[in-house]
Amino acid sequence: MAPDSPGSAAAPEGGRPSRRRLLLGGGAAAVGGAAALVGADAVLRGGTGGPGPAPPEERLNGQATVPFHGRHQAGIETPPQAHGRFVAVDLGDDADAEAVRRLLRLLSDDAAKLTQGDAALADSEPELATVPARLTVTFGFGRGLVQRVAPERVPTWLGPLPEFSVDRLRAEWSGGDLLLQICADDPVTVAHAARMLTKDVRAFGTVRWVQDGFRRAHGSEAGGTTMRNLMGQVDGTVNVAPGSEDFERIVWDRRDNPEWLRGGTGLVIRRIAMDLDKWDRLDRPGREEAVGRRLSDGAPLTGENEHDEPDFDAVTPLGFPRIAEYAHIRRARSADPSERVFRRAYNYERPATEPGEPDAGLLFVSYQADVDRQFVPIQRRLDELDLLNEWISPIGSAVFAVPPGCGANGFVGETLFA
Amino acid sequence: MAPDSPGSAAAPEGGRPSRRRLLLGGGAAAVGGAAALVGADAVLRGGTGGPGPAPPEERLNGQATVPFHGRHQAGIETPPQAHGRFVAVDLGDDADAEAVRRLLRLLSDDAAKLTQGDAALADSEPELATVPARLTVTFGFGRGLVQRVAPERVPTWLGPLPEFSVDRLRAEWSGGDLLLQICADDPVTVAHAARMLTKDVRAFGTVRWVQDGFRRAHGSEAGGTTMRNLMGQVDGTVNVAPGSEDFERIVWDRRDNPEWLRGGTGLVIRRIAMDLDKWDRLDRPGREEAVGRRLSDGAPLTGENEHDEPDFDAVTPLGFPRIAEYAHIRRARSADPSERVFRRAYNYERPATEPGEPDAGLLFVSYQADVDRQFVPIQRRLDELDLLNEWISPIGSAVFAVPPGCGANGFVGETLFA
Ligand code: HEM
Ligand code: HEM
Repeated sequence: MAPDSPGSAAAPEGGRPSRRRLLLGGGAAAVGGAAALVGADAVLRGGTGGPGPAPPEERLNGQATVPFHGRHQAGIETPPQAHGRFVAVDLGDDADAEAVRRLLRLLSDDAAKLTQGDAALADSEPELATVPARLTVTFGFGRGLVQRVAPERVPTWLGPLPEFSVDRLRAEWSGGDLLLQICADDPVTVAHAARMLTKDVRAFGTVRWVQDGFRRAHGSEAGGTTMRNLMGQVDGTVNVAPGSEDFERIVWDRRDNPEWLRGGTGLVIRRIAMDLDKWDRLDRPGREEAVGRRLSDGAPLTGENEHDEPDFDAVTPLGFPRIAEYAHIRRARSADPSERVFRRAYNYERPATEPGEPDAGLLFVSYQADVDRQFVPIQRRLDELDLLNEWISPIGSAVFAVPPGCGANGFVGETLFA
Repeated sequence: MAPDSPGSAAAPEGGRPSRRRLLLGGGAAAVGGAAALVGADAVLRGGTGGPGPAPPEERLNGQATVPFHGRHQAGIETPPQAHGRFVAVDLGDDADAEAVRRLLRLLSDDAAKLTQGDAALADSEPELATVPARLTVTFGFGRGLVQRVAPERVPTWLGPLPEFSVDRLRAEWSGGDLLLQICADDPVTVAHAARMLTKDVRAFGTVRWVQDGFRRAHGSEAGGTTMRNLMGQVDGTVNVAPGSEDFERIVWDRRDNPEWLRGGTGLVIRRIAMDLDKWDRLDRPGREEAVGRRLSDGAPLTGENEHDEPDFDAVTPLGFPRIAEYAHIRRARSADPSERVFRRAYNYERPATEPGEPDAGLLFVSYQADVDRQFVPIQRRLDELDLLNEWISPIGSAVFAVPPGCGANGFVGETLFA
């Protein structure tokens, strides 16, 4: 839905008063003077529930929702929210296929509610659920989960990535049987949803790791502005556009994936630490050369504007390539148009309590139908040669299969049990 | 300045092109369809720098600034931003008064720039500085700093609080010579400002602790909505209103404070952990009784609306007080109208990587001219009796003197050197 389109403020649930609305009461959602820039797939809900579209003052981004049900899971094509929390779960030894099914049903039901601004089934703080703020919950299955449910249907690429020489992986940030990707524009919303969903998990497993990420807040920058990472680089310029044919092929095309993954995809999450102090000792020309793009606006070193096509053949008067052989964008680009991924990264930073550098970097998250054929060749090239490796090192890594979305009475992952 | 007042979108710096603007270039700040609800003291800046007020589409909250210079430091009367980072610094052994002066000058200059959306003096990622998002930087001095500069002018109340029986304090969250309170509506802005300011500190001391807090995002709720903490309670209803006479007296009145603190105040920060699992086992009536207010809307148990005056004398048909003797609001309220504080709290949560509860709770932050006479009596009463103590325990504590603001050529803390 287009931002600010006339219908976008109508209450999507029609006449049915939602639990959220009952909790809020009539007047509590009345609003002073606010408006919001809303992501493409978000729906804005008026607070008073009267007929017809709500007046513009009521269009708070906190009330924007992204549908949970559908052909694909939300949270991938969704324009990235400001906050992302990634929770990996290890299933308990006694969690058999039937238990996993119960868990997924529980999680799906609660995610469906929470994303629409309604309290979870056994919500202990239902009032914290009333601000969905474009909340999405996306589930990913690790090898361990699929093996437990349908060992013959594990995608070939589902499991740890091959080892790369740049890797400095730590177990505490790697692996996991089940991933909950929880994204919203509001940090309280994320905290509440994560807590409720983590409670659902308790009887079935334990939390293996939690990784928090952030981007610019909603309303900080114009819609469509490419994010900057903590190195200050414009990060995300060349990417597959959600909704495009390319996206369909790169992200959703099942190719050789097992049938149950139709409409789903593969997710790679890499925790990549940045040595920011070292980076800051490099001058700006050096930094721009490392990537092959300008820091000021992200334009390629051979162009004028961010989205100009880089000219990898251009040379300087002395005959050196204008975009260096070791530049990240040269190395990351493949001649094979199918060797691409959809990137949806978050910054991360855990302030140090000890003197010295904080633990800061990029939660690199990419989606691709086939991790082995799409992600691995890129990472392999970057492993061989990429000047950025001087300042970055992967300290966490995990791969998940993202099942398709489900209908209103279904649950995410049901196709695995079919 | 009132939200959406006609002048609020005019560029405050008049004709002078700011560094930020130069960095952004002309078109980079052009905006799709966004508008923003801005806090009372924020100024919205258009992105293109043309004459006259910018069109409404350009009023991004990311471009809203809060003046750094003034009689008081910003960040206290400022409507709370979504993100707050509190950084405590220990001065090095060799940091004498002259070094402290240099440090404060450096920090003030960089804070003045960053809060206005300009790069810091030696900014290593200047492009990350272009989204001020109501950034404020507030400095507080611990006993150690004042003693080093002017030992005879240490406020009597500046130092560790008396011990309370509820305290479970950990050194890692307590004390500190210098506090940087960094608040903005954008998490990237906070991360960048904190990094630049922490760099300034390196030659003079080390970071003792960093505490991150969050509230609802900008645009999530109507302006003026009282925040909820992670227990789900409406938290902040009875508070002193910025700009009021009470505020002047409670927060800024120097009373017996040394002269250099005129226009300043005292800051208490307590990291108060919540046992949320235990809290969730309590039913709603029990939770409401513990505070003396309704969970749904924060109204007192004797009233209808959030801001109704609680009736502490009301009794049930059986003769029990409607607001229990042990209720938090009864215990926190003082008969002496000068025994009050201004609260400006943040939620905190550090997701656990180990199974079990995350480290979650409230960064209780209060401002009061005299910590001993205003904060301590309240905390003492809560220590004696407060049912909330069943679920909360202070694990960090620090007290700082907040010097007054400074003029355009001055620096925060200059009055201590006068
Ligand atoms: C901390 C780690 C990383 C940083 C800071 C980083 C930064 C960047 C930057 C600044 C760009 C140019 C702007 C853009 O098109 O987005 C870029 C492009 C790209 N990066 Fe990375 N990157 C990182 C890790 C990775 C990893 C792990 C992969 C995949 C294995 C990857 C794949 C790509 C791709 C495919 C492009 C687009 C290249 C093209 O122009 O075709 N990056 N990255
Ligand atoms: C995690 C710890 C705490 C929680 C969850 C908490 C929660 C609350 C809640 C829900 C209210 C009622 C709504 C309101 O007026 O804001 C309240 C009121 C208040 N609290 Fe707390 N509080 C905590 C710690 C403290 C501390 C440490 C102090 C000061 C020592 C304090 C002082 C007050 C005061 C002065 C009031 C207003 C009482 C009145 O009605 O006059 N609170 N608190």
